Amino acid sequence: MDEKGISKAVIKRLPRYYRYLGELLEAGVERISSNELSEKMQVTASQIRQDLNNFGGFGQQGYGYNVQYLYNEIGKILGLDTVHNMIIVGAGNLGQALANYVNFEKRGFRLVGIFDANPVLQGVSVRGIPIQMIDTIPEFLQNNDVEIATLTIPKESVVDMADMLVKNGIRALWNYAHTDLNLVVPDGVIVENVHLSESLMRLSYNLTSYERNQKNQ
Amino acid sequence: MDEKGISKAVIKRLPRYYRYLGELLEAGVERISSNELSEKMQVTASQIRQDLNNFGGFGQQGYGYNVQYLYNEIGKILGLDTVHNMIIVGAGNLGQALANYVNFEKRGFRLVGIFDANPVLQGVSVRGIPIQMIDTIPEFLQNNDVEIATLTIPKESVVDMADMLVKNGIRALWNYAHTDLNLVVPDGVIVENVHLSESLMRLSYNLTSYERNQKNQ
Repeated sequence: MDEKGISKAVIKRLPRYYRYLGELLEAGVERISSNELSEKMQVTASQIRQDLNNFGGFGQQGYGYNVQYLYNEIGKILGLDTVHNMIIVGAGNLGQALANYVNFEKRGFRLVGIFDANPVLQGVSVRGIPIQMIDTIPEFLQNNDVEIATLTIPKESVVDMADMLVKNGIRALWNYAHTDLNLVVPDGVIVENVHLSESLMRLSYNLTSYERNQKNQ
Repeated sequence: MDEKGISKAVIKRLPRYYRYLGELLEAGVERISSNELSEKMQVTASQIRQDLNNFGGFGQQGYGYNVQYLYNEIGKILGLDTVHNMIIVGAGNLGQALANYVNFEKRGFRLVGIFDANPVLQGVSVRGIPIQMIDTIPEFLQNNDVEIATLTIPKESVVDMADMLVKNGIRALWNYAHTDLNLVVPDGVIVENVHLSESLMRLSYNLTSYERNQKNQ
């Protein structure tokens, strides 16, 4: 599989393709044309053909795409065919919400530990996994093969935490704290920042500009 | 302020500018050059100048940008200078996490109601707001001026819920359910979908392709 020269924009669309194809599979759909996929995804059919050609082009003239095959191939490209062990640091509402989201397990993200600084939470279980204290993380990481840490802790402590996690072997950070970690981790450590407030601001922008347009008409 | 012809890509970057400028303000920084902003945001300086020129260009040669002024102007463009009333539908962990996030209030998103279908939660308060039952939503919306509904309910019920909310006057949906609502709401209703699993898949892709590259070296 040749993945050279795939643009970031295409990579960004792959999870969406994967999600849509998953929905089609659930609905029992076995094959789909780029036109149908286009309508469902609100992306042009030629864009879809172009995107999927990046990965060797799984479509066949007059047949369309085999949904299961495409789903599996995109899953492989996304690394969803291997198991990644994950811990969650920060067992507040958001941390617990993510811990309870079983779909992550289905896609190969196996939750192996949850940590918090609040002694009240010690031993409380989320989905069968007892919350442990944050100062036990280094020992835990020495004894367990963990690649991903999800950070649902306050902004103030997240840089030091990221630093400690990376020193103890964490390879990827899924960061919900309101700061970007990209600049503070060494090269080769993967950072994916989730900024929920930015999403709300986009909503606000769209709402406001729609209302302004209505007034001007 | 002329907002015509602003590309979606620019709009997408505005919340990031706003967040960075907010951090600078907190740190007491009064002015910043596009070069400094560029380094912090990992966007080229010419990109920053180009982006901000879209809004009349607030920079001055040899002085840079006035942080407070730029922050306020971008806030206005994003509609953050007016108050938007919001409800949360779904008071599970994720709904409660969002309800507890006070920064939203600071930016003009005022939480006025939380709803759930689970009778066990009736009357339980989150940040002083009692959880109400979902069947009371139509009456609530008739008596309160609410623009935004945050949807933290399962995928299975989200389409019907969106339909009911829109019929009762909701103008914007902030959707966390794992399905896109864009196709099911009427024109003019704003939808912002948050797909956390797609973010995790991007992380997985980056982690996997980094590891593949290491092996090939």
